[in-house]
Amino acid sequence: MSGLERVLVIGAGLIGTSIALALRERGHQVWLADRDSATARLASDLGAGMVAPDLRDAKGIADVAVLAMPPDFVAAGLAFAQECAVADVYTDVASVKAMPVRQAREAGCDLETYVPGHPLAGREKRGPAAARSDLFLGRTWALCPLRENAPFAVDAVTDLALACGAVPLRVDPRTHDEWVALVSHAPHLVSVAMAARLAGPGVPAQALQLAGQGLRDVTRVAAGDPALWAQILAGNAGPVAEVLSAVAADLDAAARELAAAAGATGAAPGMAMVTGLLGQGNAGVARIPGKHGGTPPELAVVQVVIADKPGELARLFNTAGEAGINIEDIRIEHSPGLPVGVAELSVRPSAVAALLDAMEAGGWPVRR
Amino acid sequence: MSGLERVLVIGAGLIGTSIALALRERGHQVWLADRDSATARLASDLGAGMVAPDLRDAKGIADVAVLAMPPDFVAAGLAFAQECAVADVYTDVASVKAMPVRQAREAGCDLETYVPGHPLAGREKRGPAAARSDLFLGRTWALCPLRENAPFAVDAVTDLALACGAVPLRVDPRTHDEWVALVSHAPHLVSVAMAARLAGPGVPAQALQLAGQGLRDVTRVAAGDPALWAQILAGNAGPVAEVLSAVAADLDAAARELAAAAGATGAAPGMAMVTGLLGQGNAGVARIPGKHGGTPPELAVVQVVIADKPGELARLFNTAGEAGINIEDIRIEHSPGLPVGVAELSVRPSAVAALLDAMEAGGWPVRR
Repeated sequence: MSGLERVLVIGAGLIGTSIALALRERGHQVWLADRDSATARLASDLGAGMVAPDLRDAKGIADVAVLAMPPDFVAAGLAFAQECAVADVYTDVASVKAMPVRQAREAGCDLETYVPGHPLAGREKRGPAAARSDLFLGRTWALCPLRENAPFAVDAVTDLALACGAVPLRVDPRTHDEWVALVSHAPHLVSVAMAARLAGPGVPAQALQLAGQGLRDVTRVAAGDPALWAQILAGNAGPVAEVLSAVAADLDAAARELAAAAGATGAAPGMAMVTGLLGQGNAGVARIPGKHGGTPPELAVVQVVIADKPGELARLFNTAGEAGINIEDIRIEHSPGLPVGVAELSVRPSAVAALLDAMEAGGWPVRR
Repeated sequence: MSGLERVLVIGAGLIGTSIALALRERGHQVWLADRDSATARLASDLGAGMVAPDLRDAKGIADVAVLAMPPDFVAAGLAFAQECAVADVYTDVASVKAMPVRQAREAGCDLETYVPGHPLAGREKRGPAAARSDLFLGRTWALCPLRENAPFAVDAVTDLALACGAVPLRVDPRTHDEWVALVSHAPHLVSVAMAARLAGPGVPAQALQLAGQGLRDVTRVAAGDPALWAQILAGNAGPVAEVLSAVAADLDAAARELAAAAGATGAAPGMAMVTGLLGQGNAGVARIPGKHGGTPPELAVVQVVIADKPGELARLFNTAGEAGINIEDIRIEHSPGLPVGVAELSVRPSAVAALLDAMEAGGWPVRR
């Protein structure tokens, strides 16, 4: 049997410390361990819990131990923690699941008490100083129960995800890896491959002056840490390769169709493949869940030109708030060369008229 | 000789009407023509100018005529307008340039007075009702002077771009097309190819529950109108095919390297290609100009959890504004399943401390 009163977090990085902070806020007792003792002390100083004793002297210290370390280290970390019998139940948070599970099995770990997990949350920063107790609030937390798992272990790890404010989603390790390959790892490399073209020889800086918001969106994630991403991709290489290969084939077919159209004289050949792909793209985007977990209502976008100075956005939001309008999303468009910006406010269609009224009353010109 | 006092806009869609509105605000006299007379009347009712007489009766009506129509129609539109001698100078706004220029040359148009152009601005909506006088504010406006162009014609079209608040950038038509293929058309299809995978057979809705902000960014533009994009891609097929082919080759090579790594037993083979591509991706993103036309300063991001209710963002921006802090950008992260959101505020690094102070004073918990 296991509860969740006492939790040992092994690995006090961004994710581990964020879990610790979330649990501390709920009154759980948290122990912190890290192979770098200064990191564990920093996390402790941030209010994430107490520094744990050497794990060899920590038998039975926790109900649940969380292995918050990169995928390559999970199996070895689990074997050691179980050898020290530090907890009744074990989980991890690595972003790939099949590899650590296979390695844990090969290492002879006790799989009755190890429930693999993966909270879908992160930041562009790393380390305990970047941790936040609310990091998992409303995010999906994938749980990958194994056939060997004891029910009490699955329950304890589910409670852990819930205690962090996350939404647990059960999925087997192989399927998990296929899903994150599709929604995270492959899209990352697709973004990278497009961004890499911008750094190609013969691309002058002036060409980038023609860049709009679309290019910025498509390539934003390509700014991520190459070393970290090389690790992630290597750890999920098979499923990522499968998605990338399909994307590459589609792009190659599109390129061939376009090249044929460009070379044609007289009546241009058809664009059936490209047209079909554009439609499939529409269908794919429509499947991504929006705010609050549901299908996004078709939000209406209202654009407002704002001066690029302190207080201007405040005035705008005040005006909307006073009119009782909930702004669902906002995007500020950059205006190269000018000290103004365009704020794109997303609201429910039913709120558009009231928002336009409010903007007009507040002195922002609107077009009806 | 030509001034810019009297402008005839032929094609009262989003771009044409926006140009008209911008010119009207500056006191220029604007005539509006459209093959659909109701569209021209609507634009006129919106304050964009007066409905022009039939072009056959409009000789000398304008200093500059703007052909605001899709690329396929530009050459024919130009030939007709020049036959009617409606203006001293002509320009267009189509998003591809080599094709209309070639067609205009083939049609025997007067190239002394036709200066091709392309304002880099747009909206996801179409038609005169979506037009805005500030659409071009701070945006790049590509001008593609031809060797046949008279200097006064180039000056007049340059003045037109400036009058709309845009930043003119001179480039020859072929180079223009290569550049927009790289920064707009190819990225669009890359986004589409990734998004299309999400609609593939065997992708359950649950897989999309693992989607984060990265996937949303990469695939956002793939929601665009397929019919419109098929046209755009066909009109710039050669340059787009070249970029796509290179991206496809990189993705295919990455897929092969990952597949080899996945299939390897014992020591994994190297990931030299993928690692190199990740680095190139970083370099590419760094070349995209940021706010105000310059290289973006490294902005710091501060994350604040906000309740999803009217007035909350206003209170947050008030607090920042009162502290004299200029928020450079904002992104609201969705929290599926929970009525809270995370506002990511981008500020200059020098403003972070003051922002954290202000947030804390305003009752938002911050982590230092």
